Amino acid sequence: MQTLKIIKIGGNIIDDNLKLQSFLMKFSNLEDPKILVHGGGKTASEFAKKLQTKVEIINGRRITNEDTLEIITMVYAGKINKKIVAKLQSYNCNCIGLSGADGNIIVSQKRQVKNINFGFVGDIDHVNTNTLSLLLNNNITPVFCALTHDKKGQLLNTNADSIASELATGFAKKFKTELYYCFEKNGVLQDVNDNNSVIEVITPASYKKLLDQRRIANGMLPKLNSCFYALEHDVTKISIGNIDMPFSKTIKFTTIKNK
Amino acid sequence: MQTLKIIKIGGNIIDDNLKLQSFLMKFSNLEDPKILVHGGGKTASEFAKKLQTKVEIINGRRITNEDTLEIITMVYAGKINKKIVAKLQSYNCNCIGLSGADGNIIVSQKRQVKNINFGFVGDIDHVNTNTLSLLLNNNITPVFCALTHDKKGQLLNTNADSIASELATGFAKKFKTELYYCFEKNGVLQDVNDNNSVIEVITPASYKKLLDQRRIANGMLPKLNSCFYALEHDVTKISIGNIDMPFSKTIKFTTIKNK
Repeated sequence: MQTLKIIKIGGNIIDDNLKLQSFLMKFSNLEDPKILVHGGGKTASEFAKKLQTKVEIINGRRITNEDTLEIITMVYAGKINKKIVAKLQSYNCNCIGLSGADGNIIVSQKRQVKNINFGFVGDIDHVNTNTLSLLLNNNITPVFCALTHDKKGQLLNTNADSIASELATGFAKKFKTELYYCFEKNGVLQDVNDNNSVIEVITPASYKKLLDQRRIANGMLPKLNSCFYALEHDVTKISIGNIDMPFSKTIKFTTIKNK
Repeated sequence: MQTLKIIKIGGNIIDDNLKLQSFLMKFSNLEDPKILVHGGGKTASEFAKKLQTKVEIINGRRITNEDTLEIITMVYAGKINKKIVAKLQSYNCNCIGLSGADGNIIVSQKRQVKNINFGFVGDIDHVNTNTLSLLLNNNITPVFCALTHDKKGQLLNTNADSIASELATGFAKKFKTELYYCFEKNGVLQDVNDNNSVIEVITPASYKKLLDQRRIANGMLPKLNSCFYALEHDVTKISIGNIDMPFSKTIKFTTIKNK
């Protein structure tokens, strides 16, 4: 079974041109079929401020009214996605930039209003892998931004970590799927102020303990939930670390394992 | 030989939600393989004003500095392209939104500075049809915005009329190619103030006469040049008209023919 690498990069890489270029060059050199998923929330927030549009984020999720949806569509699918695509092409990585609406690849449902009205935020319903398989089989690398659609004409703001884990899960039967979350830290940390205190392995049992001890920072919870979701759905390898992690055999990072 | 329809729509359709929806619904129902190309200059200019960025257009071409390129990338590839894609998906037209950088489909050269420095404006060098053929053969409709790249990492602002004619030309050997330019008028007009004064056929000979008599409005020149370029490169059918033109057998429009 062939390996498929799905790599998610966060805002800290996207905002730093040199880091981004260095990452994209290494990414281009990966020989296995691969998918890139990018966030961009920080850039979107800065841009919203420029347009004097209110930025409101609750539990790590952006309240997305019509204006905010327009802004993130422009920033995620336009500015960031096309910049990455053009750069990858210059490194001879043939890629296509996608939202979940393109090829009807990721269908979401608008989040129900309970205590909080998140607006145009989507929770993923299902992933259609046919079009993606077509691209991967023809050596075309998909580059996803954090937007999906409801198949009724509405774009929806969707968490990039969730997109990465759903894509990994969707391909778990066709490929040996590896999921990499790259962010500003070296991994899940024992002590958030010490980037060397990487917890090298987290299992469902040890995760429960860490939660009980309130040792997991709030910001890490959605990412770890995405990891455990992927683990439960037969994704082969799940790692959290810095941007060198997918390319290095020596640095420390966090692996999510069954035991 | 199968027919391929390439339809370009301009800003007047994009800015009008009802017109756009009606157009996209009819477009979805076309059974032949098809490609949609959209402009968006008017929306980009409005957005630039909101950001207090200067808009400068010379001979119908936008002076594109770094800020302007960022704006048009957000508006063309983000806001407009993804809105169209989501809407088409709701009409069961499986499509993928593309810039020329995606799939390395349209490679341009940054325009040389002669009298005017247009900045990041690209003149198309060549079209790679392989990835597009892959999509078309799998019933996926490409939706192009007016951006290309230089394959060295740089996005370039590129005229949507030129993109449409280059795509038509690129496919002229694989398909019976039909090129439709839809805009706010009913066709090329004898009298710009009378929308019923459509010139139904223009040939290279009659075009020369019209030019000599200065009967062609300046704004029409680049569009007609794109048409004659396509005519010289074996495109089967070239039409200029309103947004109903590709779907109607009764309305008047302008056809560009050899004789």
